[in-house]
Amino acid sequence: MALIVHKYGGTSVGSIEKIGKVADKICAQVKKGDQIVVAVSAMSGETNRLIALAEEMSDQPHPREMDVLVSTGEQVTIALLTMALHDRGCDARSYTGAQIGMITDSAHGKARIRDIQCDAAVHKDLEQGKVVVVAGFQGVDEHGNITTLGRGGSDTTAVAMAAALDADECQIYTDVDGVYTTDPRVEPKARKLDKITFEEMLEMASLGSKVLQIRSVEFAGKYNVPLRVLSSFEEGEGTLIALEDENVEQATISGIAFNRDEAQLTITGVPDKPGVASLILGPITEANIEIDMIVQNVGVDVTTDFTFTVHRNDFAKALELLEKTSKELGAKQVLGDDKIVKVSLVGVGMRSHAGIANTMFQTLAREGINIRMISTSEIKISVVVDEKYLELAVRSLHEAFELDVDGVIA
Amino acid sequence: MALIVHKYGGTSVGSIEKIGKVADKICAQVKKGDQIVVAVSAMSGETNRLIALAEEMSDQPHPREMDVLVSTGEQVTIALLTMALHDRGCDARSYTGAQIGMITDSAHGKARIRDIQCDAAVHKDLEQGKVVVVAGFQGVDEHGNITTLGRGGSDTTAVAMAAALDADECQIYTDVDGVYTTDPRVEPKARKLDKITFEEMLEMASLGSKVLQIRSVEFAGKYNVPLRVLSSFEEGEGTLIALEDENVEQATISGIAFNRDEAQLTITGVPDKPGVASLILGPITEANIEIDMIVQNVGVDVTTDFTFTVHRNDFAKALELLEKTSKELGAKQVLGDDKIVKVSLVGVGMRSHAGIANTMFQTLAREGINIRMISTSEIKISVVVDEKYLELAVRSLHEAFELDVDGVIA
Repeated sequence: MALIVHKYGGTSVGSIEKIGKVADKICAQVKKGDQIVVAVSAMSGETNRLIALAEEMSDQPHPREMDVLVSTGEQVTIALLTMALHDRGCDARSYTGAQIGMITDSAHGKARIRDIQCDAAVHKDLEQGKVVVVAGFQGVDEHGNITTLGRGGSDTTAVAMAAALDADECQIYTDVDGVYTTDPRVEPKARKLDKITFEEMLEMASLGSKVLQIRSVEFAGKYNVPLRVLSSFEEGEGTLIALEDENVEQATISGIAFNRDEAQLTITGVPDKPGVASLILGPITEANIEIDMIVQNVGVDVTTDFTFTVHRNDFAKALELLEKTSKELGAKQVLGDDKIVKVSLVGVGMRSHAGIANTMFQTLAREGINIRMISTSEIKISVVVDEKYLELAVRSLHEAFELDVDGVIA
Repeated sequence: MALIVHKYGGTSVGSIEKIGKVADKICAQVKKGDQIVVAVSAMSGETNRLIALAEEMSDQPHPREMDVLVSTGEQVTIALLTMALHDRGCDARSYTGAQIGMITDSAHGKARIRDIQCDAAVHKDLEQGKVVVVAGFQGVDEHGNITTLGRGGSDTTAVAMAAALDADECQIYTDVDGVYTTDPRVEPKARKLDKITFEEMLEMASLGSKVLQIRSVEFAGKYNVPLRVLSSFEEGEGTLIALEDENVEQATISGIAFNRDEAQLTITGVPDKPGVASLILGPITEANIEIDMIVQNVGVDVTTDFTFTVHRNDFAKALELLEKTSKELGAKQVLGDDKIVKVSLVGVGMRSHAGIANTMFQTLAREGINIRMISTSEIKISVVVDEKYLELAVRSLHEAFELDVDGVIA
């Protein structure tokens, strides 16, 4: 008998009919003898409907009250799903974030979980074979104020429940059937992975593969909760996200992620002296603009060049700030380009294999793709290239590293 | 500085615009220096929308989960109203039933309030000049399960809050501007009452004047909370419902209530012996049919006649049960009529004035209205007449007791 936490997102519970199908799926697992905890999102469209009401009411809806408002979305789903389970002869009980004791900090709209005070009732429910249905995305702070974990936070709820209950697995049901070596819309030969490590998944997720919310993967890694991504609508084993398995030889590269939302800024001819980086980046971060990649060239003479990337939405503002800094520092010039993409190879096997970077650069060179920026981490190599080369870069790398073939060691 | 509890029903908060107007009204009172607690219902239509979802999901929605579902309606309203108050520079904080500590029994869908554990936060909010916005209609049982007080329960929430906080007045804002001597649609000369006692209001309410929920009036009477019914949309003092004022001479009759929902059943020629009443009424009450008036004639010979009224919806079933009892008891016959109405005079002054009943019977006789059944209580006389005489009966009694004239003592 296993204890499994399921999570169903808004699309999976988007209608009465779909909630019924989710109930069928859960009942089948209960009959197999498993103990099931389910975390659910609001029915698709519901959160947007509630936000629209708030925006009609107020130009700047009060953050505490916004959480009181939108948290009703998941409360509706837990009630309907629990009704559906009862109808199928499957005993169940719903819990709001407050009722399950999901204690968070007080950062309304983006709260972080501090503790789960799963009370005795939950354990008793599970022992009695009841399905425990939990409202995702929500919690309460230490004063009892309703909080929300931010969009996608239902994944985090599921992982946190799995960690608190020491569950055997946390299964995230979604509209894709697993994690792929890259986006199948860009490379049709993309292959579903059976297994990926937490670290790889983190890199994939942060690079724009939107299967899982990053925070939930961090959480799962921290508490070593085996995480599985599966389809709500199709049968299949999905992709298991777990700790690195020491006994199995690792594929060097697990996947290729990319991000179309970046823009590049360069300032040239700045004085090459201590503190210059913070003079350049300070005004940007003070304007709440997040900086992704940063590269500083080796200085020639007494000046150096400095390049970084930001989200495309922040490009215009960042450029304006950089122009100002340029004048103050007496720099040579400011360059900007928002027609760029970041392409990254991700894989824990990279640690123990040399030559990955070289193969990557050779492959791109062979296709005539100019690399504009390079950044590396322990399990990732990212390059910035012209936007127009995105598909070509992804496909040529996918082939070069034989990602369409299962289990190949480079 | 007074502490006032306001209550706004679904129609009063039925749109973003209307919630804005409610916020304006509250802010105006806060600026006058009053401390304000507000209980609100779900936006009109919202509760029905949620019930429809449940009925689509399940033929017999689980009662506990039904309460989890429908309680979201009021939660949406408290959030939106509190946002609106903040926007108007009026500090405020929302509370769900659980957050305010509205402790009820566990009768889902029709729970009764046991206690309000208004915590220190509420008192602190009020001292700081914050408006406290409470979700009506909902509470939690001792295990933390969400409960609802049943339809109209927001009135009860408001009165309970007023009792718990020892408020100076509980103001129920509604779509009528007060309590009238009778239904103005039946008697255009009906006059708005400035004041009425709890007991009179109870009799009026239970007889079909749907201004206030009965339970809230009982509650207000029990804890001596002055209750005022006012219009959400128009200015005015409304009607104050309070304890009888010993120093003021009472009008004999406060109003005329009527009820179109009754049906009459008669069984004749039943043995006149102890226990026969329970033999006749037992099967009816066992079928969960509520009996209103009961009249037993003085027996002639060794048999007697027995007449009672039930809700029209239960007429067919009650008739069927009575036919069966009739055979078992060897009664003479069973008669039924669902084309009847009950008309009642209500007034605490009735206690100290003789001759009210006589005036009533003479008035009806003069208009050729046959009385089919009579029942009296300390502050009420009810008669059953043919449905077709309803308007005539109400108008002739309204005139006979000079209810269109303010402050007349009969």
